[in-house]
Amino acid sequence: MTSDQLFEQIKSKKSFLCVGLDTDLSKIPQHLISTDDPIFEFNKAIIDATADLAVAYKPNLAFYEVHGVAGWHSLQKTVRYIREKHKELFIIADAKRGDIATTAKMYAKTFFDSLDCDSITISPYMGKDSVSPFLEYQNKWVIILALTSNESFSDFQMIENRSGKRLFEEVIGKSIRWGNIDNTMYVVGATRAELFQDIRKVAPNHFLLVPGVGEQGGSLHNVAKYGMNSKCGLLVNSSRGIIYADKTEKFAEVARHKAHQLQQEMQQILLSSGLI
Amino acid sequence: MTSDQLFEQIKSKKSFLCVGLDTDLSKIPQHLISTDDPIFEFNKAIIDATADLAVAYKPNLAFYEVHGVAGWHSLQKTVRYIREKHKELFIIADAKRGDIATTAKMYAKTFFDSLDCDSITISPYMGKDSVSPFLEYQNKWVIILALTSNESFSDFQMIENRSGKRLFEEVIGKSIRWGNIDNTMYVVGATRAELFQDIRKVAPNHFLLVPGVGEQGGSLHNVAKYGMNSKCGLLVNSSRGIIYADKTEKFAEVARHKAHQLQQEMQQILLSSGLI
Repeated sequence: MTSDQLFEQIKSKKSFLCVGLDTDLSKIPQHLISTDDPIFEFNKAIIDATADLAVAYKPNLAFYEVHGVAGWHSLQKTVRYIREKHKELFIIADAKRGDIATTAKMYAKTFFDSLDCDSITISPYMGKDSVSPFLEYQNKWVIILALTSNESFSDFQMIENRSGKRLFEEVIGKSIRWGNIDNTMYVVGATRAELFQDIRKVAPNHFLLVPGVGEQGGSLHNVAKYGMNSKCGLLVNSSRGIIYADKTEKFAEVARHKAHQLQQEMQQILLSSGLI
Repeated sequence: MTSDQLFEQIKSKKSFLCVGLDTDLSKIPQHLISTDDPIFEFNKAIIDATADLAVAYKPNLAFYEVHGVAGWHSLQKTVRYIREKHKELFIIADAKRGDIATTAKMYAKTFFDSLDCDSITISPYMGKDSVSPFLEYQNKWVIILALTSNESFSDFQMIENRSGKRLFEEVIGKSIRWGNIDNTMYVVGATRAELFQDIRKVAPNHFLLVPGVGEQGGSLHNVAKYGMNSKCGLLVNSSRGIIYADKTEKFAEVARHKAHQLQQEMQQILLSSGLI
């Protein structure tokens, strides 16, 4: 998928929502637990209930790996289900990998060939050769951590170099030359809305994957105000706020309701920005 | 395992060798391919042939995940085999994870509870709350990336802040307060031997996991010269140089020979340092 195709999907769905599939057995409705594959059944119901309101889905690898072989199986089934039933969707493996080139090649093979995801989140600490192997694939994306939404983001990401440039700006400034707007995005937390302006100075045209709206306290309005560009340039993620909004048999319906609320806000933002 | 127990094992085996299990189907002997689980059969043979010469084993997750469900199964079997047959060994999940606290908790559960590894490698980009959940476990370790052995290590790790401190020094300087010498190690590449002196100024007592000896060009002699402390404080990893030294039916024997060569050098170093 190119950035233009992603923008087309955003315009047609009037949404730039990404749904995070952090599927936790201890939080999903109890009636699913007795099924053969509760994680997959939960994901399937959430996806079917929200696919017309979202442009991307983001399974968080930790929640699958914790179940070992069975978890990996649920992940494979989830990705395959999206590919077969909802072909237009953009799939993000939220894996935050980052290793030397020979190992990065194996991860690229895992997430792009074997699993057939569109993209993978990458931690930039090891530099260019931990990212480049992913960029050799056609129509696949890396989503590089820049400014994260967690409390301790400033431990290292805000460190200033001698000329006052912060680490997240160094990360974007360097890595922006490794790929292009059709294979590279950045993770920027919604909780740092005021910093979106600085990021747009370095990366005006790139898509940004934005976690942290909702439970983590980020404001969709501010993210759009400071981060949106002429082709939207944003994928805003919500995980817990949508998928765990209800724990009864009506969970998918309530998830749809929550996703719909966000989509309506996004539609309003896209309209008032003149993008649709 | 405590750092003292690790040092005891080093003294008793006269070795501070870690064997990297980057098991690649395209590189293992052909006669294993027809077995039910070639990766496990290969690992088992390597482990049995080298366990008295090494103190640690380091499966690299990418090489297992690339085979999906089957790969995860091989990994589980490998870890279980080490636990049952060679109880004294230190097992490192080379996974380079790093995510927000709720996700980090899941990874801790995966690698410490489900898989029963002793330790996991961690990328520090997201700061303290991506590391802390791992430190809540007793007798388990985080091994934080500081200065890596790959070509592009300097893209970000060598960036100097306003007072001249480099990022890898900031990473060690901050994270050293999160844990202690019994639950925290650092990754420092053998290819940066001259920088071991700077690292020992910040972390004199911590164990360092050192990749990059052999094929990547690092010198064991220099690593020991600049990096060894009074309790050894080093685990030196070799992967390809040992496990792929031979591709015939004699692969395990040749791997033992290569591991033995390294162990002999290490014994010499430990003797001349007065540690044994």
